[in-house]
Amino acid sequence: MNNIREIVSNYVLPNNPTLYRSKNDISDPRIGDYLFTHNDSETCIKEVNAVLLSVPQDLGVARNGGRTGAALAPEAIKKVLYKLTPYSGTVNFFEKIGFYDAGTIQTDNLTLEESQAIQENVVSGLLNEGYYPIIIGGGHEIGYPNGAALGCSFESIGILNFDAHTDVRPLIDNRLGHSGSPFRQIIERKDVNIEGSAFVEFGIQPFAAAESHCDYVKRIGGRIMNYTDIRREGFEISFDNALYRTSENTDTTYISFDIDAICSAFAPGVSAPATIGFTADEFLLATEKAGTHEKVRLVDFVEMNPLYDIDNRTAKLVALGITSYLVGLSKRF
Amino acid sequence: MNNIREIVSNYVLPNNPTLYRSKNDISDPRIGDYLFTHNDSETCIKEVNAVLLSVPQDLGVARNGGRTGAALAPEAIKKVLYKLTPYSGTVNFFEKIGFYDAGTIQTDNLTLEESQAIQENVVSGLLNEGYYPIIIGGGHEIGYPNGAALGCSFESIGILNFDAHTDVRPLIDNRLGHSGSPFRQIIERKDVNIEGSAFVEFGIQPFAAAESHCDYVKRIGGRIMNYTDIRREGFEISFDNALYRTSENTDTTYISFDIDAICSAFAPGVSAPATIGFTADEFLLATEKAGTHEKVRLVDFVEMNPLYDIDNRTAKLVALGITSYLVGLSKRF
Amino acid sequence: MNNIREIVSNYVLPNNPTLYRSKNDISDPRIGDYLFTHNDSETCIKEVNAVLLSVPQDLGVARNGGRTGAALAPEAIKKVLYKLTPYSGTVNFFEKIGFYDAGTIQTDNLTLEESQAIQENVVSGLLNEGYYPIIIGGGHEIGYPNGAALGCSFESIGILNFDAHTDVRPLIDNRLGHSGSPFRQIIERKDVNIEGSAFVEFGIQPFAAAESHCDYVKRIGGRIMNYTDIRREGFEISFDNALYRTSENTDTTYISFDIDAICSAFAPGVSAPATIGFTADEFLLATEKAGTHEKVRLVDFVEMNPLYDIDNRTAKLVALGITSYLVGLSKRF
Repeated sequence: MNNIREIVSNYVLPNNPTLYRSKNDISDPRIGDYLFTHNDSETCIKEVNAVLLSVPQDLGVARNGGRTGAALAPEAIKKVLYKLTPYSGTVNFFEKIGFYDAGTIQTDNLTLEESQAIQENVVSGLLNEGYYPIIIGGGHEIGYPNGAALGCSFESIGILNFDAHTDVRPLIDNRLGHSGSPFRQIIERKDVNIEGSAFVEFGIQPFAAAESHCDYVKRIGGRIMNYTDIRREGFEISFDNALYRTSENTDTTYISFDIDAICSAFAPGVSAPATIGFTADEFLLATEKAGTHEKVRLVDFVEMNPLYDIDNRTAKLVALGITSYLVGLSKRF
Repeated sequence: MNNIREIVSNYVLPNNPTLYRSKNDISDPRIGDYLFTHNDSETCIKEVNAVLLSVPQDLGVARNGGRTGAALAPEAIKKVLYKLTPYSGTVNFFEKIGFYDAGTIQTDNLTLEESQAIQENVVSGLLNEGYYPIIIGGGHEIGYPNGAALGCSFESIGILNFDAHTDVRPLIDNRLGHSGSPFRQIIERKDVNIEGSAFVEFGIQPFAAAESHCDYVKRIGGRIMNYTDIRREGFEISFDNALYRTSENTDTTYISFDIDAICSAFAPGVSAPATIGFTADEFLLATEKAGTHEKVRLVDFVEMNPLYDIDNRTAKLVALGITSYLVGLSKRF
Repeated sequence: MNNIREIVSNYVLPNNPTLYRSKNDISDPRIGDYLFTHNDSETCIKEVNAVLLSVPQDLGVARNGGRTGAALAPEAIKKVLYKLTPYSGTVNFFEKIGFYDAGTIQTDNLTLEESQAIQENVVSGLLNEGYYPIIIGGGHEIGYPNGAALGCSFESIGILNFDAHTDVRPLIDNRLGHSGSPFRQIIERKDVNIEGSAFVEFGIQPFAAAESHCDYVKRIGGRIMNYTDIRREGFEISFDNALYRTSENTDTTYISFDIDAICSAFAPGVSAPATIGFTADEFLLATEKAGTHEKVRLVDFVEMNPLYDIDNRTAKLVALGITSYLVGLSKRF
């Protein structure tokens, strides 16, 4: 992990150990036990595959007129994640892959643009060293540096946006990015090569998108898979189709899981809750498929908002999304 | 809209503009932008098809021993409705049909009976001018004047009550209507012609109905479609069946959507929440089918209660129910 | 009911009538009306089949490091239960079977072990008199005396644990039972005969179980039916399979319904909520099947926690579980 420490040094705060409390039961180890004890030895260094990175950022949500709080999500999610067992019912993923919590990107006293530049730099470093970054936001503005980092590291990328909203809104005053603009920003970056046909908007809800934004996606050759159509055709076949479109002719794929694509009954703690949406089970099916798919290299989980959560329901769901992704990922190694 | 203004004058308060705040983004217009600016011109008059009418009434809920708050629903629902886009993913319904918010029935300082008489009069006026009224309650006591107005305007009507409860309870002291009695009141009105076979109770839940009330429905020839049976047979085929029964031999059909027919996970903000019930997706399928069906002329949405809502989840669902109905309706024109 | 009163005397507090308020409507009788008036006559004595017993206990939850409150569940559940109608849509179960509320096990100032001994004694008495006990917990520690009572009354028993967790955790200090240990305690009782193959863990969730606990279940020949596998194979066929395994070669079957097996969207009020899990509909299908199955003799409902409930959603679901079980049971007589 020394190379990870070098990559993140100066920019990243280490794991917050107060989020972790061991049950001290050797017959019932939790993810936190592995992360805070097992992994912290030199023998683990070359085994690490997946790296967790937290980005407590919601300046972009505020700019977009949304309600803030997503910056508090990484701590809420990790507190729950550390208490889960690593056992899926068939496999303990720590026996298959190395998983390391690299800490939290510093965002205090930085502008959104400064923070995004640091994040892009850190994610690029992790990608270049061969890791599989898992980034916990934060608002969807953290998607822009993720996609940019992947796009600058590979010849061609695909993007699957799992989301109730299109998030291709124009910049404010033609220059300020926000939580509604990340995919337009990635697509319009000169140094990122993404074919429109490898961009899929998955789960866009009726009456939650502007026609002009959907037109933009179509104009660049992207594909909108509406929530209503997905319900009609079936979740699994639709998600497989989206994975195919974003990976078939690309070197690698970025999947962004916006938690507001999930029905607010299952995920109340988000910036902009939706009363319809995917089920908790469907979300976990998608995250495991993302982990299993050979082209998927980078995922993020965004827009969770602890201020509106109910008894940690949403934090737990995101934590399960991370473990399901890791179980999928463990099948690749 | 001048004729609408005449119909509602004296009885109806105009739209409350404080519920509406524009995003001022010409590329992302919301329903409120259309209602508060586009529609307010003379050119729109002959285009209006669907008219929204609010009835902040819950005296009947109180009489029935229920918890009040449904009177606050119209404002809660409209505040959310005005922020939605009018774009379903395939169509902007404002391009197909005219939709007008006629305002709010005055209920202050009136008895339930006085308020119901005014409502029946206003709804009759709207029907006689050819409009499709969409009424937001209020407790289910607002269903009585709706059904009575439709029944007095047509030779024969059908009624589809989408509800966890039968709402055919006798009047209190043989004279006072309430939120549990609307369908008995409509059926027993001498000047309303409804065949029992055209009355369907859709979604009645186990252990939520009195056997004697179910017996009443059967005795008049009506049909009870129990929630448990609907689950077994499938939602869509059951709802299609209910639509067929209430429209096949009638001139027109009234559908009353009681939000408590929906599972409280999706619709916590109702007078009498049910822990089982229809999903949010099923509700929206039903409202769009209602809009599409050529015989359906009048719908209402009742028993939403903002005092028990969670982060506007239920208000949003009802708002989506209205937009889905409008999308369905737009296919008729 | 005199024999019931003898069995429970000294240990059990009678029904709390303040939980019950009649609607005083003879045409709309509620379960509370039957329990507090109809049943309380001598003519009912020989008709009673199912006996409700409340156990307000959560010392075992505290020992297991969980959050307490389950001791408050019986009152919360019964307050709702008494208001339901006994009419399923096809049958009033009071016309088929006798149902009696035997009251509440005294737990004040008792250790967990003392309370469990009393409970085992009372449940044994009810079983020996031919009754079908329905026990409302309390934490899962109330499962141990239930299983022990059944195991000591029959040659061989099966156990179906409907649960997100395995609850076969070792005793604390090798001697203190708790809410995580009931099934290990039953299995290891010398005077209880249960084949490992007749023990099914139904609904165990990913990342919620220790691998070592699952290994224990497998080692004794038990079967773990994981939540994820059940989702893939279908709920009903899986539950039927579990019923078959726990009843085929046994004299009788005990089913323990841990409410945390249900998704927290439908059942937020539990000690340890799970963000995935069974639906409310699936739970009611299972409880009715339990009632119908000829081998099932004893059920309990555990881990409901009113302190975290939302507008009585979970209490209502458990109440419906009891009525669905009674409807199933009524088919046997």
